[in-house]
Amino acid sequence: MRLDALALQIGARLLGDGDLEVARVRSVFDAGPGDLGFAAAPDELRAVPAAHATALLVPESWAAEHAHELDCATLCAEPVSRALGRAIDALHPAPPAPRGVDPRAVVHAGARLGRDVAIGPGAVVGRALLGDGVIVGPLAFIADDVELGPGANVGPGAIVLSGVRVGAGAQVGPGAVLGDEGFVFAPEDQAERRENVPVRHVGGVVIEEGVCIGANTCVDRGALRDTRVGAHTRVDNLVQVGHDVIVGPDAVLVAQVGIAGWATVGEGAVLAGQSGVKERTDVGRGARVGGQAGVVHDVPAGAAVAGTPAIPHLSWLKAMARLRHLDALERRVRVLEARLGERDALAPRSGGG
Amino acid sequence: MRLDALALQIGARLLGDGDLEVARVRSVFDAGPGDLGFAAAPDELRAVPAAHATALLVPESWAAEHAHELDCATLCAEPVSRALGRAIDALHPAPPAPRGVDPRAVVHAGARLGRDVAIGPGAVVGRALLGDGVIVGPLAFIADDVELGPGANVGPGAIVLSGVRVGAGAQVGPGAVLGDEGFVFAPEDQAERRENVPVRHVGGVVIEEGVCIGANTCVDRGALRDTRVGAHTRVDNLVQVGHDVIVGPDAVLVAQVGIAGWATVGEGAVLAGQSGVKERTDVGRGARVGGQAGVVHDVPAGAAVAGTPAIPHLSWLKAMARLRHLDALERRVRVLEARLGERDALAPRSGGG
Amino acid sequence: MRLDALALQIGARLLGDGDLEVARVRSVFDAGPGDLGFAAAPDELRAVPAAHATALLVPESWAAEHAHELDCATLCAEPVSRALGRAIDALHPAPPAPRGVDPRAVVHAGARLGRDVAIGPGAVVGRALLGDGVIVGPLAFIADDVELGPGANVGPGAIVLSGVRVGAGAQVGPGAVLGDEGFVFAPEDQAERRENVPVRHVGGVVIEEGVCIGANTCVDRGALRDTRVGAHTRVDNLVQVGHDVIVGPDAVLVAQVGIAGWATVGEGAVLAGQSGVKERTDVGRGARVGGQAGVVHDVPAGAAVAGTPAIPHLSWLKAMARLRHLDALERRVRVLEARLGERDALAPRSGGG
Repeated sequence: MRLDALALQIGARLLGDGDLEVARVRSVFDAGPGDLGFAAAPDELRAVPAAHATALLVPESWAAEHAHELDCATLCAEPVSRALGRAIDALHPAPPAPRGVDPRAVVHAGARLGRDVAIGPGAVVGRALLGDGVIVGPLAFIADDVELGPGANVGPGAIVLSGVRVGAGAQVGPGAVLGDEGFVFAPEDQAERRENVPVRHVGGVVIEEGVCIGANTCVDRGALRDTRVGAHTRVDNLVQVGHDVIVGPDAVLVAQVGIAGWATVGEGAVLAGQSGVKERTDVGRGARVGGQAGVVHDVPAGAAVAGTPAIPHLSWLKAMARLRHLDALERRVRVLEARLGERDALAPRSGGG
Repeated sequence: MRLDALALQIGARLLGDGDLEVARVRSVFDAGPGDLGFAAAPDELRAVPAAHATALLVPESWAAEHAHELDCATLCAEPVSRALGRAIDALHPAPPAPRGVDPRAVVHAGARLGRDVAIGPGAVVGRALLGDGVIVGPLAFIADDVELGPGANVGPGAIVLSGVRVGAGAQVGPGAVLGDEGFVFAPEDQAERRENVPVRHVGGVVIEEGVCIGANTCVDRGALRDTRVGAHTRVDNLVQVGHDVIVGPDAVLVAQVGIAGWATVGEGAVLAGQSGVKERTDVGRGARVGGQAGVVHDVPAGAAVAGTPAIPHLSWLKAMARLRHLDALERRVRVLEARLGERDALAPRSGGG
Repeated sequence: MRLDALALQIGARLLGDGDLEVARVRSVFDAGPGDLGFAAAPDELRAVPAAHATALLVPESWAAEHAHELDCATLCAEPVSRALGRAIDALHPAPPAPRGVDPRAVVHAGARLGRDVAIGPGAVVGRALLGDGVIVGPLAFIADDVELGPGANVGPGAIVLSGVRVGAGAQVGPGAVLGDEGFVFAPEDQAERRENVPVRHVGGVVIEEGVCIGANTCVDRGALRDTRVGAHTRVDNLVQVGHDVIVGPDAVLVAQVGIAGWATVGEGAVLAGQSGVKERTDVGRGARVGGQAGVVHDVPAGAAVAGTPAIPHLSWLKAMARLRHLDALERRVRVLEARLGERDALAPRSGGG
């Protein structure tokens, strides 16, 4: 594709020769002739001047200072990530969408399918409601009493159990499990022993429109209300969302995060990888939870917390810095003790100075 | 259902009008007319007086003090969680159990099935032994040389490999993997490089009666003995149970817990979410491991530990509190240094006071 | 099998009666007559003298000091783990390898299969390239545009998406997901709200020869380059390998590790269980990351780090030890303050000593 046409299409400003042709997008490190190179992070931009790409896609802010260093054509845009997405759409045709219901899928006679539904081989679909344009991947399982909104996409091997509703355009990753019962047990007296039996759940799961759920992630159904993942929330791989949890809208749960039962995560909150939220704990709107942090108290809206137990991010940074210098602090105390001991030895303990 | 009949059935004491009808159980926040509201936690009980439910189910202990504040009928019970489970059973009919072997399942001619076995569409069952009333979900895989005890329930998409025995009434969650080989490798000299090859495992997996295994959880087979999950142990989602591990009975592993090879977790021990146990480490009977804790030394029976490396819970709480005040401690040391320095400046270093 | 023959076959030195017969390998704790007992760890060797095994397999180094304490035959070897692997191979016949393409598998007409390919019942294979001796487990999914090298083994229920190449002899565990898109989003202006849309990925996944991938582990495809798991790297269960990550060769990722996007893990590096690496962070060759550590800065080659944020292992050990004694340190400061206060009270604040 000609650079001038590409610039127009992705909303970028072109510096250099618009007649040049690029055929694909590549990391700035790997890009060569015919490639549009992209630096994924600010520090990768240092590598840009040495790139072998035919053209580069960079942030306007960087170009303002550095464009003169480049000896190749440049596309400048802000935000650059949006231009990247568009460039990929322009240069890399999307793989063909699957079409039709594969004859090797098992679809219940009572299932109601909209127009242009695609169901892959080996998938099993119960008495469910599938909106227009829904895609169900190979070997996925859609139970009875499930609703998949228009354009929803359930990946290969994903499992969607009864009582789950998935909104329009939402994506459910491969191997994800939606609607399993949560970790709720109640004691039942028995002649011989106290046995904890699972409490049957009366809530379901609601995945709102535009949500993305990652691979092998689990979202449990609610014990007493619907577990809810709000619109456009992004959930990464291997995340645990417990029963009766309410997340989002527009929240972000990075890989391996765990949210225990009854907790809530407010609009736009971001939980970094491997962090956890204790049961019945609330993370406020726009709050940010650091990687591996353990939230055990409610987090106010807009706050940033880190550590286990999670505390304000700045306090945690300071504490961690001090922690590394505890040895030095202990030595300073020892010096003080020695000096005071010495003075005490010299000066009579009781009596004037 | 009439409240007086419900009270009788779930073993609760009725305060108010027994003629009232309730149709379903709901969280106290969501409950409205026709609902039995339930407060899942003590602090939710504050919301109870304002509830719109027709009736409420509350702990006896709370009712004793607060029942007079309520303007709706009340059911009081202890333990309230047991009454809740029973109320759900009374008001919410269980979904119909699956029945029979689906013709789209693949069942080996050598499989031995008890009475009333149900196998879902797309499931694959090898030369295995399935007791009476076993349920195998859609798209689950039961390998050769597997035994599923009476009433065992294997969820959709779960994978049960050769050499795994599952006890009576045990539940295996959707997407769980039982019996994969553990993370055990041995070096093999090769002409060109040292290569680590997997050591074939001679142990299997034993899941005892009444165990619950969560979604996408993994239990590895033993290298030299059977990996064992003891009776009535509850394992949440996305948990890793390593090779040769012995857990339970009656233990609790919350979501995303990891137990490394050869470790043991004693009867009734509770591991909170995202905690981990190092290989060859023993967690004693009734011990409690805090969320995200990292157990690297044996934990005595009945002990409570937290932190990484895990230490006694109280010591950890104290250390965490101090950690937050390290700044202040450092300032105090600085003050001492300044004052002592001042005195030193005033007083001759050697010589009498 | 006779002990003398076994010793010869596994490269061990025999102490005792070579006429004895052993039939299987077992943990030293479980071993009885007819068993070859094996102590999996140094501290288990204490149990060896009391073992009921017919014979024991022990490290040469241990035998040198302790062989005289034993009253049963002994096989001594170094490294003992290699001899163990060989003993298992000798005494425990491998389960029969699956053979042929099951008629209940769904194999695309355009798939190209090498010799001796085995595909299990319920598996779905697209227009992919499967080398000689490849095994695809039951209910696994191999998408279009996948290459599986000779001898590669894809476990039951595993999901291998388009653009993934798996090297010779590599193993993909049950339920693993390779090639899902990573967690990369870009803002798209919309009339009503800012929406983050997934950026389509142009990279794939390369799993090199001899790699082992554990159960339910996820390896995301690259956004701008191939995500790569280098030769002979061992990845345990429930691990997250993010988009554009490069790991190995010969690296080790223990269970529940998470590697965020664009990070790299060098040759031979070892990440212990539940540790995490921040996006765009590099772990050097041969580095060791402790259990549950959180790597947020680059780790130099050969370094050992621990804690969150990860610091050098020794510094972390020291800091953790000090942390446990913060109470004591605070008390020492309080004593100093009291003593200095007392002296100040006695001595006039200004004026000579």
